[in-house]
Amino acid sequence: MLDELHEECGVIGIYNGENVARNVCMGLYALQHRGQESAGFAISNGEKIRVRKSMGLVSTLLREHNVDELQGFAGVGHVRYSTTGSSTLANAQPILISCKWGQLAIAHNGNLTNAAELREEMEEAGHIFQTTSDSEIFLHEIARTQAPNLKEAIKKAISKLTGCFCMLILSKDTLYVARDGFAFRPLSIARLGNSWCVASETCAFDLLGANYVRDIQPGELLTITKEGLQSETFTQKGRLAHCIFEYIYFARPDSKIFEQSCDKIRRKMGKQLARECPVDADIVIPVPDSSTTAALGFARESGIKFEIGLLRNHYVGRTFIDPTQNVRSQKVRLKFNPIEGVLKGRKVCVVDDSIVRGTTLKILSKMLRDSGALEVHIRIASPPVAHACYFGMDFPNAGELAASSMSPQEIAKMLGVESLGYLSIAGMKECTSAPSDYCAACFDGIYPEYIGKEAGKFSCG
Amino acid sequence: MLDELHEECGVIGIYNGENVARNVCMGLYALQHRGQESAGFAISNGEKIRVRKSMGLVSTLLREHNVDELQGFAGVGHVRYSTTGSSTLANAQPILISCKWGQLAIAHNGNLTNAAELREEMEEAGHIFQTTSDSEIFLHEIARTQAPNLKEAIKKAISKLTGCFCMLILSKDTLYVARDGFAFRPLSIARLGNSWCVASETCAFDLLGANYVRDIQPGELLTITKEGLQSETFTQKGRLAHCIFEYIYFARPDSKIFEQSCDKIRRKMGKQLARECPVDADIVIPVPDSSTTAALGFARESGIKFEIGLLRNHYVGRTFIDPTQNVRSQKVRLKFNPIEGVLKGRKVCVVDDSIVRGTTLKILSKMLRDSGALEVHIRIASPPVAHACYFGMDFPNAGELAASSMSPQEIAKMLGVESLGYLSIAGMKECTSAPSDYCAACFDGIYPEYIGKEAGKFSCG
Amino acid sequence: MLDELHEECGVIGIYNGENVARNVCMGLYALQHRGQESAGFAISNGEKIRVRKSMGLVSTLLREHNVDELQGFAGVGHVRYSTTGSSTLANAQPILISCKWGQLAIAHNGNLTNAAELREEMEEAGHIFQTTSDSEIFLHEIARTQAPNLKEAIKKAISKLTGCFCMLILSKDTLYVARDGFAFRPLSIARLGNSWCVASETCAFDLLGANYVRDIQPGELLTITKEGLQSETFTQKGRLAHCIFEYIYFARPDSKIFEQSCDKIRRKMGKQLARECPVDADIVIPVPDSSTTAALGFARESGIKFEIGLLRNHYVGRTFIDPTQNVRSQKVRLKFNPIEGVLKGRKVCVVDDSIVRGTTLKILSKMLRDSGALEVHIRIASPPVAHACYFGMDFPNAGELAASSMSPQEIAKMLGVESLGYLSIAGMKECTSAPSDYCAACFDGIYPEYIGKEAGKFSCG
Amino acid sequence: MLDELHEECGVIGIYNGENVARNVCMGLYALQHRGQESAGFAISNGEKIRVRKSMGLVSTLLREHNVDELQGFAGVGHVRYSTTGSSTLANAQPILISCKWGQLAIAHNGNLTNAAELREEMEEAGHIFQTTSDSEIFLHEIARTQAPNLKEAIKKAISKLTGCFCMLILSKDTLYVARDGFAFRPLSIARLGNSWCVASETCAFDLLGANYVRDIQPGELLTITKEGLQSETFTQKGRLAHCIFEYIYFARPDSKIFEQSCDKIRRKMGKQLARECPVDADIVIPVPDSSTTAALGFARESGIKFEIGLLRNHYVGRTFIDPTQNVRSQKVRLKFNPIEGVLKGRKVCVVDDSIVRGTTLKILSKMLRDSGALEVHIRIASPPVAHACYFGMDFPNAGELAASSMSPQEIAKMLGVESLGYLSIAGMKECTSAPSDYCAACFDGIYPEYIGKEAGKFSCG
Ligand SMILES: Nc1ncnc2c1ncn2[C@@H]1O[C@H](COP(=O)(O)OP(=O)(O)O)[C@@H](O)[C@H]1O
Ligand SMILES: Nc1ncnc2c1ncn2[C@@H]1O[C@H](COP(=O)(O)OP(=O)(O)O)[C@@H](O)[C@H]1O
Ligand SMILES: Nc1ncnc2c1ncn2[C@@H]1O[C@H](COP(=O)(O)OP(=O)(O)O)[C@@H](O)[C@H]1O
Ligand SMILES: Nc1ncnc2c1ncn2[C@@H]1O[C@H](COP(=O)(O)OP(=O)(O)O)[C@@H](O)[C@H]1O
Ligand code: SF4
Ligand code: SF4
Ligand code: SF4
Ligand code: SF4
Ligand SMILES: [Mg+2]
Ligand SMILES: [Mg+2]
Ligand SMILES: [Mg+2]
Ligand SMILES: [Mg+2]
Repeated sequence: MLDELHEECGVIGIYNGENVARNVCMGLYALQHRGQESAGFAISNGEKIRVRKSMGLVSTLLREHNVDELQGFAGVGHVRYSTTGSSTLANAQPILISCKWGQLAIAHNGNLTNAAELREEMEEAGHIFQTTSDSEIFLHEIARTQAPNLKEAIKKAISKLTGCFCMLILSKDTLYVARDGFAFRPLSIARLGNSWCVASETCAFDLLGANYVRDIQPGELLTITKEGLQSETFTQKGRLAHCIFEYIYFARPDSKIFEQSCDKIRRKMGKQLARECPVDADIVIPVPDSSTTAALGFARESGIKFEIGLLRNHYVGRTFIDPTQNVRSQKVRLKFNPIEGVLKGRKVCVVDDSIVRGTTLKILSKMLRDSGALEVHIRIASPPVAHACYFGMDFPNAGELAASSMSPQEIAKMLGVESLGYLSIAGMKECTSAPSDYCAACFDGIYPEYIGKEAGKFSCG
Repeated sequence: MLDELHEECGVIGIYNGENVARNVCMGLYALQHRGQESAGFAISNGEKIRVRKSMGLVSTLLREHNVDELQGFAGVGHVRYSTTGSSTLANAQPILISCKWGQLAIAHNGNLTNAAELREEMEEAGHIFQTTSDSEIFLHEIARTQAPNLKEAIKKAISKLTGCFCMLILSKDTLYVARDGFAFRPLSIARLGNSWCVASETCAFDLLGANYVRDIQPGELLTITKEGLQSETFTQKGRLAHCIFEYIYFARPDSKIFEQSCDKIRRKMGKQLARECPVDADIVIPVPDSSTTAALGFARESGIKFEIGLLRNHYVGRTFIDPTQNVRSQKVRLKFNPIEGVLKGRKVCVVDDSIVRGTTLKILSKMLRDSGALEVHIRIASPPVAHACYFGMDFPNAGELAASSMSPQEIAKMLGVESLGYLSIAGMKECTSAPSDYCAACFDGIYPEYIGKEAGKFSCG
Repeated sequence: MLDELHEECGVIGIYNGENVARNVCMGLYALQHRGQESAGFAISNGEKIRVRKSMGLVSTLLREHNVDELQGFAGVGHVRYSTTGSSTLANAQPILISCKWGQLAIAHNGNLTNAAELREEMEEAGHIFQTTSDSEIFLHEIARTQAPNLKEAIKKAISKLTGCFCMLILSKDTLYVARDGFAFRPLSIARLGNSWCVASETCAFDLLGANYVRDIQPGELLTITKEGLQSETFTQKGRLAHCIFEYIYFARPDSKIFEQSCDKIRRKMGKQLARECPVDADIVIPVPDSSTTAALGFARESGIKFEIGLLRNHYVGRTFIDPTQNVRSQKVRLKFNPIEGVLKGRKVCVVDDSIVRGTTLKILSKMLRDSGALEVHIRIASPPVAHACYFGMDFPNAGELAASSMSPQEIAKMLGVESLGYLSIAGMKECTSAPSDYCAACFDGIYPEYIGKEAGKFSCG
Repeated sequence: MLDELHEECGVIGIYNGENVARNVCMGLYALQHRGQESAGFAISNGEKIRVRKSMGLVSTLLREHNVDELQGFAGVGHVRYSTTGSSTLANAQPILISCKWGQLAIAHNGNLTNAAELREEMEEAGHIFQTTSDSEIFLHEIARTQAPNLKEAIKKAISKLTGCFCMLILSKDTLYVARDGFAFRPLSIARLGNSWCVASETCAFDLLGANYVRDIQPGELLTITKEGLQSETFTQKGRLAHCIFEYIYFARPDSKIFEQSCDKIRRKMGKQLARECPVDADIVIPVPDSSTTAALGFARESGIKFEIGLLRNHYVGRTFIDPTQNVRSQKVRLKFNPIEGVLKGRKVCVVDDSIVRGTTLKILSKMLRDSGALEVHIRIASPPVAHACYFGMDFPNAGELAASSMSPQEIAKMLGVESLGYLSIAGMKECTSAPSDYCAACFDGIYPEYIGKEAGKFSCG
């Protein structure tokens, strides 16, 4: 499934290291799939924090700035999700400010559900806003809080937030790490020699050679100083609400997400799907790369041969010729090419991770058929997406979701395929270790928390 | 005199016009000499304000942004002075914020003398700062002021400021214009068809074909709406303190500054200099272009022939090869070339507008002598600069000012010239219409107003 | 296997089409894997040929030039291979010249083995060279040939060339297509509505929706005019010498190469490898993406489970932080990440397409072991590369080829793996339809043609 | 007079120096007024010649390339004139080629009158052209000439050229310098320590601190090697034909042109003009900067006061907002602003260097009048331009020249001025030392040499 979901963001923080800026950027490379709109990092040398940001990929950041120019012992980095409209450098992260607590740099992944209320209240109280990101709201909250010290101010401030957030706050000498009480998004900590490393996904640790220690706890505020770690709990919700969609699509399969291997869960989902929706097909093929693992699981469980029937072009990125007729179709063809030899005369079962709008799958199905597939069966390794997400994922409006207005049969017809099968909600949850610890609101409509007004406005960082 | 003084900033605002963005940028071209570090403009279409900024010249701004993309009926523009160090896009103007009064864009020329106190107080009160510019302080002040409406908030806010400021504040429907009570920097208003145009210098009006109406008054807050102008006085100081250095160097000679033609005053200063410091020379030459007018006056009064003995290269800008030995000297030679035929065998009187460090004049004097000048006499159309400016001009530290530690004789020796003469302070003031209305603190050390702590930190905008 | 082989080039030509420039660029996207150094296209409108080129990827070409600006009815495009040193825009293709035959644009994929002799002879005869590419040599040859018309001149000129070439020559009204007599590199023709499309690989046809017609014949000169195709044979060699390495690594698996599906051959090689070098392992994993097909074949034949144990990062491109220690290792880690859950406690068989230097595989093997692989067995779906290529592929110097100085056992030891197996030369050839029609010189040292002096200097285009 | 004349080119060569690339670029800064379209340099280290070029100003060249990267002992540089249409990097100079004489880099200022014939002949003989510049023709001629050595080849080759040229040809060990037999354009040589420096204008020597030695002789080929200079004469024309327009407008006044100070001649022309066309005016003002010297001469001779009544903006360059109505007028207003205080109530005599189309002067005249000038009298320090130039200057087509279809009275009327006076042809010539040594064809229509077909196509370099 492509181009239909916008990722949230990715964050990384390193404390007490060498070549901090360089390592932060390496880590951002590993998190790049979580955001392609802008990238940035902020480094403290103990005296002063400095920041560098660019629109675009981490590779652009590295081209536009000399990464070795900012020397320091601690740093935070951020990749921001990609949308079209309002993308400006002002909204890129980390945001660096100065306030009564000195300089603070923030890198934030998430979406506050009470952002609008907080912002209104703050404007009323005389604050000014220079960006449209949630993170600025939070910075105001820290800055205006009456507290004996910065840590207490952060604690008070995050207590007021609802929604989902993974926050790294760098002061000139300390790195604060906070995760919301539902623990919607992944956030882990690792050890790299004498330094600490915090990141959205553990694949960043692998790249840096850091050793995974544990996940940040729900409602935990971690304070990292030269003296070491200090942990406190600032909130306790009655339950957890890990985003199950991380397993389905967002996270990289090589990451350990919510303390479980993403790859393993994704594979289980493929197997469960094979059990729930068996198919009579000659081959199973994935829509590469995000559904490859699930397809492998499906093939294993069903006993049907796994094949590579669609090739993913390595070079299709953002830059594209101006829209004309057939552009969407051409974009899909640029990204994927069917392998006739694999498909011709076969009954093909295509496994994809999810269906959002369904436009891509519709084009792909036609391409498969044009390449000689006798039948096209689609199996989706997740349930129908039918509701909005208010916790960091940028789904299209409910109206555009295929499953909000169509039954699976209708969707199958729209896609022009022989059959379509979705994983069940229960089946999906059972692939995880503790089904009740997960949010599945976009599937089942059960939101773990009250959603404030205007919360629909997605905002990462 | 070159490369030794950093200009302050230039501002322009247009209300109720057509092609507002385009005209704002044209106006910025005319104000470019007031700031070459960054340029920007903000345009309101009545619903929303949008902003575009670039590091560098107005020509870069026009290359990087499509000026016709931002349609609207009112706009403000800004060129920022050039320093080396801390120049970042974040500090570029206009600054656009959102607060309880809605969106506000500010373009500001000046230097607040109580910026540090205000900032400290605000940080204490919980505000955050994303730039290091004075303008952000002022925006906070407006945002946090309790007042029945935006105009009252602005009035209250500017009443707290000390120092020098010319401010344009654009809300989505109104343009507010304010000038400090001493009226340090020039700010005028003109009529262009049905629209109003406010600018730092009247040369911008000439370019746009707008008709000069009057100067903004000291301590005046002007509110420009669809209904027209509304004027109020928010402060009254006992005296005026126009910056006399505007006449000497800053302003373009074709501008009407403080209601007088800059060219006329500059010429008078040249004449007065000729009376005060006569010279026995064959020719009078200017250091082009800033001292040309004074040199013409000197030549006229003294009866000595005016000549062009130094050529100014049209193409020497910011980009320069990396420093090596002799770079400063090479930089001067790149900018100016002596004309041997004019100089050879002549006793040359060089008129310059001012001496700050004296390094350029030292190199120029040697160049003149190498080109065959028999004698080099220097006449400066202003008194010795011996004190810091806290009102918007970026002098070097007192320690680097030639006149702070050397007598004119010593300076003449350092420059290696036959004689050196400065205009007297009294003589300078008498060239203006009302000597007591001017600040001359950098010459005489008499500051019109109490200077707060850290005020020395220059900040334009 | 990555970063050790430089691809040759890719060419495309379209005659009589609509949106020719746009379609040429789309086609180049599909050929991007054949060259990432520069991209370009030339378009004829019947009156005049114009050219656009950029250093970098097709996406850069599209960003730097307005592709719709060049309207015309015929065009040629080119992507050039990537090396570090001598890459300049001057060497980018197509090259556009003017000569007695009018304007000619050339796009060329290959390597002339008598380039040095021809160039020397031409310089002697008074010609000048502005690039270091073989194509310029050929253009000179056309220009200086005495012939009744351009077609005859081309025919005479190509008769003098030895080595490998696929050439597209665009005059203002005609497209000439030529392929060397050994048919080293792939070149095919397709029909798209009323237009003809010629390209290095058929995956470009798929993207454009063009229908494959046939391959250009060995020694064929095809003349495409408004009247249609005209075919002639300009040379006949006693044999064919298709580059077998196209199947192994170069070509995209979804292309039909030398009239056979690349994917099918690659799969057969994987199966044959499994038969020749069986392994005792729990899982088979590819080094994605180029060896995935062979690994699938290996897994199928051996009955060992196919798994994805290495993830390929979608975002690792050219831009990289400056070299420091461990850079090569970090570069490999950036590109590939092991999935611990798949590898831990398993005996792993890694299938790769080829070994050139072996440096990447060495790092990968260590990464696999660090992720818990109990044993690492390597199976290479091609024989040891031990000789230079003079026909369009940029191998490292013989001295750097692992297999030129080490036996497989020694290489296994160097790689630090339990076992290493290569496909046999005979086994490899038997996977093709007609073993004797292929060049395998880099494996067996049997060059199909005399190699001139200095021919080692690789030159694509 | 502005924007109506395109300069030719400027060349510089340095042999045997240190920091050659850097010094070549410094010299190009001084020659920038001779060409603003592209800039480039080529450096030999004795083994190899390398080249760097950019579209735009020397400042762009320095920004885009690291000037210290190319180390060597000899180099040539070039600035190319500015036109709109066909400007491409391919046409930028120096052009670097390889031929039987090895690598050659050429920097060329001029215009060959037999270019079309030569090119046709060469294409017939089998040569290919990759640019549209005359220099490539010349390089072909050198390359194809049968001669015992490079010097003889150059000698033979330049003997075939007609028209005007100043050529620098750098081989890996030698710098060749040639000037056409009429010596149309200036070219001089200077000594800088142990090195030789050749440049279009002596102002480049001043900047580098080099000492002027002499002009290159008409028809001279100078060979500069480690052994020193060797001079030969390759052609002898019956007469000289220095371009008199160099004095009038092209050259910088601080240069010694044709062994005379440009400033002196320009001043004499101003005086002569005052004698020939007296005026009843209160003030004399120049159109800065190119007519300032002539205006000073006019003022001196006439006894009328010299004033600065028009200010030239330092920042108006190439970048400009897209054309709309009134653009030309706005462009003039951007470049020049009248000083009302100087003009109001005065009878103004404006001195300009020449009239080509007259459009700028028309706008300026109106601006002066709008600023209160009572009368506007125009005096032109050259005769009416009525004929095309085929020797390196890019005049508009004859049809667009004001003087080709209008009498001075009619032009005065078109300009809307009280009076208009031109310098006479005889008067102009008498200001030089040897009137008969000059070309004045654009004034008097007497071309020193036969003009070949298509010669009208201007081509610098
Ligand atoms: N190499 C890979 N193999 C399998 N899945 C991957 C790989 N890289 C990324 N993914 C999955 O695909 C998702 C989207 O990746 P991305 O690189 O942005 O590509 P897409 O264009 O398909 O959205 C990731 O979040 C991850 O789940
Ligand atoms: N064309 C001109 N003629 C005379 N004076 C000028 C002109 N342009 C600018 N100036 C004066 O020179 C000052 C500095 O101008 P600027 O263009 O920045 O050049 P500089 O490099 O000399 O500082 C201006 O503030 C103005 O007083
Ligand atoms: N999506 C794909 N799936 C399988 N093989 C591919 C794919 N894309 C490219 N290849 C193969 O890998 C080779 C190299 O591809 P390239 O994109 O340049 O990546 P690499 O960085 O691995 O060299 C191609 O020539 C082709 O054989
Ligand atoms: N500083 C100067 N003073 C006087 N004349 C100059 C100066 N610089 C250039 N010129 C003259 O003006 C001509 C054109 O200069 P250029 O910088 O291109 O400006 P323009 O835009 O006026 O054409 C030069 O060839 C020279 O004769
Ligand atoms: S609504 Fe869906 S995407 Fe959003 S957090 Fe819940 S499971 Fe994740
Ligand atoms: S101190 Fe000098 S420069 Fe500053 S405002 Fe006063 S007169 Fe102007
Ligand atoms: S030597 Fe090898 S790479 Fe080269 S053409 Fe022959 S088989 Fe292909
Ligand atoms: S025609 Fe005019 S511009 Fe051309 S060379 Fe002769 S005098 Fe110079
Ligand atoms: Mg994605
Ligand atoms: Mg200045
Ligand atoms: Mg590759
Ligand atoms: Mg010019």
